[in-house]
Amino acid sequence: MGTQGKVIRCKAAILWKPRAPLAIEEIEVAPPKAKEVRIKIVATGICGTDINSMDTEQLSQLCPIIMGHEGVGIVESVGEEVSTVRTGDKVIVLCLPQCGECNTCLNSKNNICTEIRLSWKHLAAEGRITCKGKLVHQYIATGTLCEYTVIKEISVAKIDEGTPLEKVCIIGCGFATGYGAAINSAKVTPGSTCVVFGLGGVGLSVIIGCKAAGAARIIAVDINKDKFAKARTVGATFCVDPRDLEKPIEEFLIDMLNGGADFCFEVTGNTETVATALGSCHKDHGVCVIIGSIGSCSNKINISSHLFFSGRTLKASVLGGWRTKEEIPKLVSDYMAKKFNLDPLISHTLTLSEANEAVQLMKSGQCIRCVLLP
Amino acid sequence: MGTQGKVIRCKAAILWKPRAPLAIEEIEVAPPKAKEVRIKIVATGICGTDINSMDTEQLSQLCPIIMGHEGVGIVESVGEEVSTVRTGDKVIVLCLPQCGECNTCLNSKNNICTEIRLSWKHLAAEGRITCKGKLVHQYIATGTLCEYTVIKEISVAKIDEGTPLEKVCIIGCGFATGYGAAINSAKVTPGSTCVVFGLGGVGLSVIIGCKAAGAARIIAVDINKDKFAKARTVGATFCVDPRDLEKPIEEFLIDMLNGGADFCFEVTGNTETVATALGSCHKDHGVCVIIGSIGSCSNKINISSHLFFSGRTLKASVLGGWRTKEEIPKLVSDYMAKKFNLDPLISHTLTLSEANEAVQLMKSGQCIRCVLLP
Repeated sequence: MGTQGKVIRCKAAILWKPRAPLAIEEIEVAPPKAKEVRIKIVATGICGTDINSMDTEQLSQLCPIIMGHEGVGIVESVGEEVSTVRTGDKVIVLCLPQCGECNTCLNSKNNICTEIRLSWKHLAAEGRITCKGKLVHQYIATGTLCEYTVIKEISVAKIDEGTPLEKVCIIGCGFATGYGAAINSAKVTPGSTCVVFGLGGVGLSVIIGCKAAGAARIIAVDINKDKFAKARTVGATFCVDPRDLEKPIEEFLIDMLNGGADFCFEVTGNTETVATALGSCHKDHGVCVIIGSIGSCSNKINISSHLFFSGRTLKASVLGGWRTKEEIPKLVSDYMAKKFNLDPLISHTLTLSEANEAVQLMKSGQCIRCVLLP
Repeated sequence: MGTQGKVIRCKAAILWKPRAPLAIEEIEVAPPKAKEVRIKIVATGICGTDINSMDTEQLSQLCPIIMGHEGVGIVESVGEEVSTVRTGDKVIVLCLPQCGECNTCLNSKNNICTEIRLSWKHLAAEGRITCKGKLVHQYIATGTLCEYTVIKEISVAKIDEGTPLEKVCIIGCGFATGYGAAINSAKVTPGSTCVVFGLGGVGLSVIIGCKAAGAARIIAVDINKDKFAKARTVGATFCVDPRDLEKPIEEFLIDMLNGGADFCFEVTGNTETVATALGSCHKDHGVCVIIGSIGSCSNKINISSHLFFSGRTLKASVLGGWRTKEEIPKLVSDYMAKKFNLDPLISHTLTLSEANEAVQLMKSGQCIRCVLLP
């Protein structure tokens, strides 16, 4: 491409202050330095995490910031010492990096690479993007609501040449998070019973994962009945709104599932639901996986210790437990091999300039995932 | 024995109301009915659970009650349909039954037999023991602070003929609980790092279990430094009083153990310690086992969800996860084979008539386990 080595002027959706609408602005994207990659973004999803963060006061010191972290694109150019991708490669953005060198990457099966500290700084490549003379932050060290971006090599992975980019962007966060929570974190077993609390894009991806793992019964729980049809489409065998029940949902599920579920997933983001999900697990061996409520240090989980009495286990899942750089491209290949279908998860497709409309759709509960194209 | 089929008059330590001293009274122990066993108690331990319960108002409706649940003895006679023990057998009392027929016993690896409901009724055999004309309850469906008792067959297991009864009574609860938490619930691995919070009889038994499982480092934590010498005797490699530190104990342990412990055990009974123990686990893979704080429904655990962020797991252990009727006798055989030593755990030996002195010793913190002989 003729842009290599030059600053690229392009569009981005910028948040100038918390709770403000996104502003479509021209940004300047500098060429990548060592171990950095400049990417032409081809498609990006909007995730509930983007939406929640945009409304928090903590973000004010990071504004202006480019939101978005579910992106795919084509490598425009690479900096020195970059060896895993090259110009023209189709790539997926990794909102959790995998450096391959830290203690976690080298010595554990865990996926929380120590370089996650980039995520909290919300800077992928320091000072590489500006807008109106100001440094622009990049949400979760990615920031994909733009036409071009610069990201660390550890935060990007090459995917198959033939991949249709507009579909797979959601594998980068929402799908991987839910699907992996079932497959990797809970290790759902064939013939088991599963309950999923919260039927957004991540919750539906949990259902897809439970089904892929061979679960016999998958109970989908939400207080928005409009979500039920889609939940059934992706594999739920029974849907329930707790407000329709005459007893607490955990009692209902314990009766229905002969003592409780083998696996429960909390995907609502409500810490009170953690106790409900744990209590809905079978007392002897049920495993409860927290997905939705783990983002903030200030989130407190309050649980009767009695829920642990016999054999329940509580754990969390971050980005589905995937070691991203190695495993997210394999998930993309699995999609290409039709091991799962992403179509039901993408309810809307808009353009980058319609980013605010996408945000409103997500907030309204009408949208599962909205993919933005340039 | 000449007592078979007759009522036995003997002594018991009776609690007539919460917070009262135990009264040494004459009781009448009726012959066992079907599936019941009458046992001459030869030795019994006093456990922290006895001590705590004696001071709770909930116990008032169950008084008069015989406390104690760590007992061993000799079968005096058996009721009809009893097949697993017979007159003259040495037996250990099981404070958690194993019926072998319920859904849990048949269909899971869990040890919480459904007949645990006997425990909450505090009646082993209804109406079989009286004192001054009143029905006497039996603590946790056992009640071993007496000379004779009647217990369900599912709550008693035959042990080796040659077993020295005065030592092994503590295997029935305290030792099995701690040792099994390390071996069965945490599944401590060779070369691992372990931290034990709380160095009573159960905490020391956790240390013995960690050592038996091949842990490389065992950190013992207590606010009573008098406990440290014994902790070192049974296997602790380092002892620490959190009050001596300039930073929170979890930060100290994360630094000391290069990211945190592989396994942490909460044995203090303080729900606040659960968060400390979980936070002291390695963020990538640490497993925290709750032992001390799970007795009461009203115990609330309050934890920042962030502690689960990467890979920590929280679970509980009840009676060390042992399936009692099958496995407790094997633990007794392991003791006979010198796989572990109980001597350091038995700090005092008194007689049944000195039961109140034993209670005071336990409350004072001077005593690890006090064994009462007739």
